[in-house]
Amino acid sequence: MTSQEKLLGKTLKNKHIAVGLDPDLSKIPGFLHSEDNPILQFNKIIIDCTEKYAASYKLNFAFYEKYGIEGMETLFQTIEYIPEDMLVIADAKRGDIGNTSQMYAASVFDYFRADAVTLHAYMGEDSIAPFLNYHDKISYILALTSNKGSNDFEKLKMDDGSYLYQKVIKKTLEWNQFNNCGIVFGATNETELEENIGSFGSLNVLLPGIGAQGGNLERVVNAFKLVDKDNFLINVSRSLLYKDNSREFARASRNEIISLNEEIERILNP
Amino acid sequence: MTSQEKLLGKTLKNKHIAVGLDPDLSKIPGFLHSEDNPILQFNKIIIDCTEKYAASYKLNFAFYEKYGIEGMETLFQTIEYIPEDMLVIADAKRGDIGNTSQMYAASVFDYFRADAVTLHAYMGEDSIAPFLNYHDKISYILALTSNKGSNDFEKLKMDDGSYLYQKVIKKTLEWNQFNNCGIVFGATNETELEENIGSFGSLNVLLPGIGAQGGNLERVVNAFKLVDKDNFLINVSRSLLYKDNSREFARASRNEIISLNEEIERILNP
Repeated sequence: MTSQEKLLGKTLKNKHIAVGLDPDLSKIPGFLHSEDNPILQFNKIIIDCTEKYAASYKLNFAFYEKYGIEGMETLFQTIEYIPEDMLVIADAKRGDIGNTSQMYAASVFDYFRADAVTLHAYMGEDSIAPFLNYHDKISYILALTSNKGSNDFEKLKMDDGSYLYQKVIKKTLEWNQFNNCGIVFGATNETELEENIGSFGSLNVLLPGIGAQGGNLERVVNAFKLVDKDNFLINVSRSLLYKDNSREFARASRNEIISLNEEIERILNP
Repeated sequence: MTSQEKLLGKTLKNKHIAVGLDPDLSKIPGFLHSEDNPILQFNKIIIDCTEKYAASYKLNFAFYEKYGIEGMETLFQTIEYIPEDMLVIADAKRGDIGNTSQMYAASVFDYFRADAVTLHAYMGEDSIAPFLNYHDKISYILALTSNKGSNDFEKLKMDDGSYLYQKVIKKTLEWNQFNNCGIVFGATNETELEENIGSFGSLNVLLPGIGAQGGNLERVVNAFKLVDKDNFLINVSRSLLYKDNSREFARASRNEIISLNEEIERILNP
């Protein structure tokens, strides 16, 4: 099954939540701390209780790299535990010259066996091409992010009056020959989303920023509904993982994703 | 000793070569392949024979991540083997929202104990700040890179007539309050280097692109000489590591760095 098929297998059933497995030891329920590997155990329980409802799991590599080699083992074992039909996004934000990107691609796709990756496109086409050579994977390119710093460069105006993030979207469309490209578009930028969604073509869209960062779910989903576009994922991490930190945390997380799914369903089919 | 002190300890003695430890198993001399860990053994020999002449070692994380957990162990052990007074650059090209960059910073600075890191600034100030909070480390921000893809975004014109990479340099100067910032500037862009070097202020400069990529050493060193700037590093990887792949490879690599140092000395003090 290609990554695109995995994605559509979920989104066509109106599942759009990418659960961000960004485990923070300081926020994991206390009773798990006596486990051999509290983070792995936490991840497994979150997967167990959300896999019926999730469209994808997104693993932010930083949260594992922080713990060095042990963390990378946890990352590997977590990915191994995720059901086969589920899109696994390596949120690694890589990007380097060609021969180097080739190795990053080997790391995320061959070694960690992720289905998709997030990428910095600042260095241009040859820094992205080695990832795109994996035709059955998905490369999500950072266009407009959800943070305040998006004003520093992404939202700067170019000499033709467009914004830098619009240039990135345009290039990504050119790179999408094998229908294996996507963009990251921060859900906190609802207005920009509404204004630009017509230019996304068939690009997959990954939207962080709902939940802890304050993006508006209704406006985001409506934007996609209006252009009749299914291939979008909304990332939710902290607000789902740490809804509750008692022994009933798993139920709280499961209820959170169910309620998000219901909300999305209500917006799509009122 | 701060990273800045380590750097100046070398560059003030006219040592400017950052040896790129980017080991490629397919290019490592055959006789090392019977070793338990050929890459680690190769790195150790390269360090042994170049440490008297090098200003820094730059480890491109991709070359280790490619081999997964085993690769990360090799990365860790390689850094451990590098002499204490030598600037270790984690060429990891990271960059993410604040709470995530915080974890990447912990990974490269606390876990791997690197002295410096390379960063993507596309996501703006809050993606860089957690690295800059390590006042005694150096953060090299990608400005203008050495590859063809630098035309796609870095060299695009902004509405005020400047180029995107110039905007990045300007921002980096603002971020340099603790004198712990640097920029990556590809040595293949000699003309842009000559035109912009006056705007670099006290920023450290890391220049890849000499050697395999074709940058001109003489023009690059002369540009720094003209502005009387010492805190620059020229990265050399493939052309030094794989000068020879016989049993005498170490001598060839050592001779290569000695000859580069002599060339630089000749340009600086003709």
